[in-house]
Amino acid sequence: MEREAIVKALLDIVGENRVLSKELDLMYYSYDSSFYTRLKPHTPDAVVFPRATEEVQAIARFATENKLPLIPRGAGTGETAGCIAVEGGIVLDLSSWDEIVEIDQKNMQALVRPGVIHARLNEELARHNLFFPPDPGSSQMCTIGGMVANNASGLRAVKYGCTEQYVLGLEVVMANGDLIYTGGVNARCIKNVSGLNINRLMVGSEGVLGIVTQIRLRCWPKPKARGIAMAVFDELDQAPASVLDVYKDGILPSGIEILDSSAIGAVNAFKPEVALPEAEAILLFEVDGNPPSVEYEGQRIQEIVGTRARFVEWSTDPKRMTQLWEGRSITATAAARVRKDGTRVFAGEDISVPLSRVADALRAIRGLGEKYGIQVVNYGHIGDGNVHTAPVINPESAAEVEQVMKLVHEIHLLAVEMNGTTTGEHGVGAVRRAYAALEHGLALEYMQKVKQAMDPDNLMNPGKLI
Amino acid sequence: MEREAIVKALLDIVGENRVLSKELDLMYYSYDSSFYTRLKPHTPDAVVFPRATEEVQAIARFATENKLPLIPRGAGTGETAGCIAVEGGIVLDLSSWDEIVEIDQKNMQALVRPGVIHARLNEELARHNLFFPPDPGSSQMCTIGGMVANNASGLRAVKYGCTEQYVLGLEVVMANGDLIYTGGVNARCIKNVSGLNINRLMVGSEGVLGIVTQIRLRCWPKPKARGIAMAVFDELDQAPASVLDVYKDGILPSGIEILDSSAIGAVNAFKPEVALPEAEAILLFEVDGNPPSVEYEGQRIQEIVGTRARFVEWSTDPKRMTQLWEGRSITATAAARVRKDGTRVFAGEDISVPLSRVADALRAIRGLGEKYGIQVVNYGHIGDGNVHTAPVINPESAAEVEQVMKLVHEIHLLAVEMNGTTTGEHGVGAVRRAYAALEHGLALEYMQKVKQAMDPDNLMNPGKLI
Repeated sequence: MEREAIVKALLDIVGENRVLSKELDLMYYSYDSSFYTRLKPHTPDAVVFPRATEEVQAIARFATENKLPLIPRGAGTGETAGCIAVEGGIVLDLSSWDEIVEIDQKNMQALVRPGVIHARLNEELARHNLFFPPDPGSSQMCTIGGMVANNASGLRAVKYGCTEQYVLGLEVVMANGDLIYTGGVNARCIKNVSGLNINRLMVGSEGVLGIVTQIRLRCWPKPKARGIAMAVFDELDQAPASVLDVYKDGILPSGIEILDSSAIGAVNAFKPEVALPEAEAILLFEVDGNPPSVEYEGQRIQEIVGTRARFVEWSTDPKRMTQLWEGRSITATAAARVRKDGTRVFAGEDISVPLSRVADALRAIRGLGEKYGIQVVNYGHIGDGNVHTAPVINPESAAEVEQVMKLVHEIHLLAVEMNGTTTGEHGVGAVRRAYAALEHGLALEYMQKVKQAMDPDNLMNPGKLI
Repeated sequence: MEREAIVKALLDIVGENRVLSKELDLMYYSYDSSFYTRLKPHTPDAVVFPRATEEVQAIARFATENKLPLIPRGAGTGETAGCIAVEGGIVLDLSSWDEIVEIDQKNMQALVRPGVIHARLNEELARHNLFFPPDPGSSQMCTIGGMVANNASGLRAVKYGCTEQYVLGLEVVMANGDLIYTGGVNARCIKNVSGLNINRLMVGSEGVLGIVTQIRLRCWPKPKARGIAMAVFDELDQAPASVLDVYKDGILPSGIEILDSSAIGAVNAFKPEVALPEAEAILLFEVDGNPPSVEYEGQRIQEIVGTRARFVEWSTDPKRMTQLWEGRSITATAAARVRKDGTRVFAGEDISVPLSRVADALRAIRGLGEKYGIQVVNYGHIGDGNVHTAPVINPESAAEVEQVMKLVHEIHLLAVEMNGTTTGEHGVGAVRRAYAALEHGLALEYMQKVKQAMDPDNLMNPGKLI
């Protein structure tokens, strides 16, 4: 279908000022935060900004009639090209559809449109002593719709799990324009086992089944206190061993982060005043809860981890906590600066392995970096085995690009071989589909059957996830 | 197909002593704990006891070739006829397939076969300072496979959620004998967002998609301390208001139970020495965590709830905790004894409504009891709005049976009207299918499409869920 006709139809649905079709505008939509889109940008046929469920339904009907792909997009902070029109079609930019429809404090729930920014929702919830626990690094930018699409998590998944755990219900527009409600048409309850759990199926489905237009989230009471412990290790293996010791003591920290020697070096080079101790690994434990609980768990962590670490420092002082955490908070930025002519590549950045294999994985990734002559910086959510790797290259060098793609491929294979996954939280999108058969075997066929049943023309975000 | 041929084929697959086909034996399999099966027992064609994945695959292939329904069964503690052969076919009794394959302490996981009893798993896990948090009332009898099929929860869902939250992966035999692994073929990781989330889709699917033959569960560190608070209320509405106050203070108890005046009366009549105070409602809060945290939250609950309750008693003494909890632990038994000639009916026993509607729901159910001349006893998991109603009738009286069925129907409608669900935790089975369209609207069609895609001949537990 000609672009002109597409644009006319979209204008008929949403009105002026909410359709983009100029090449320069569309170019912006050919990227997300992945290295993949840097190598292979894909321009959509048009971009539309719906702000009502009926508009999304009309767009879906139009797309189905004309066999045009539909690609939902939030803030574009994804690392996997999940919101990119890899087969052309219409991008639905949902980022400006950002109403917090209701905060239902009495029932501990929030009702939001997909474009609401994560940090903004938590600011609003804080006024009601509530919070939505998943805490992605992109909190200031990413949308709740994007979090649902990717089943996002972040720093606090170790205690609070992923987005799916909080999604009580969704309003979803299907390919043919059908409007469905998962979790019960009019439900406002917290517990519900009625029906097949397509509610959970939708979370993390990356837009390949339908377009989420409203989200009902369970929220939790906001903990009153928190504390941070930093532990410094001379031996890498002592770090995951300490994590297990803490769990065995009955403690579930709200976050457990690791910086290995590569990340420590990167932080100190980027901002010498942070002055992280030179070590094989640094762990940061965050504990939250009521004040006596936090004090108790902080003391226990000092005692337990102290038997394996060179030293442990614990604080509940807000200023000192920020200092202790600073190394972790600037790691991503620091990693990007380890070479003057270098850029961090977002690829292979998100494997997850069993806790018992974390140290092996970090060592193997360093070895692969040496094999391909690529500097890598490793850090991540060790509490749930989610390792973030930052390879740094000169992206203008075709040779380095070729090497890094080989490196990333081996990191993905390594993750699966170590009984892990290519993606712990960032999703599959277009970039990890190649590993779906390896990870899922015959189950992949059943995933495809489900997709086929819900989207028979394969118009919903084609080329992604499965 | 003739029973004799079915039995012969099953014997060929599993060998002697693991197939039942005598009428007397089969009769046992025509019941679960539901009132529905008391009214309408359904006898299967045969019962088989598989104890290997390959056996289940062979049975599935045989069933598909001969278009025979397959009905998985655990301990038969269900309340919804979920494990009953309502359309005939072969029951797979999985209760004796009860190996705990592995407790992987290093990765905080357990790998079990479907027949493992809940309480036994937690005994084993306790040796490793771990636990599997969902805590159904039938813990001593119910199987992990049944819990997965029903997405079971129980007393602790308010803090720890339902079974789904802990299912990291499943081995599932599909209708045609295909063997799939959800959550990754060889995965042992905790976080994994690769692929369409058919892992969560399987949980709570009541056997209509496939037969679960192995379960990989996430386990949590076992908390070291607990405490119980009992609060007694002169006004029903003060009870849910107190629950909300506690949440607003940042406290998430591990359980919050209610007994309304009908349950208090039933307990005192059944066992006068328990001597519950006469009141409109009693709340029981269970708090768990580390010792100082439990003490702190207990004190806060006393202060906060004390402003609305006649009195609050708090204890961390094991003996006193058992006494405080005793009223709740005998409620189900006491309810069944409110009439000498009466039996408790398990029907309409499991609605869930928003917290803000719990008091209204309890009042409305009492009113419906009066309308139909049926005594009802109300209690349940108020923390997540999950109300358990026990109607007590003389089951030999056709008139009372007719009245109670009308009562139960109105309770189900009431739940949906109050933005709740007909089932908070016990499932749909054969008995709540009638409400699926009301609860899910057009989404039901998509559930059916998914079912059709995975089980095209409708042989997996037909007549259930959707």
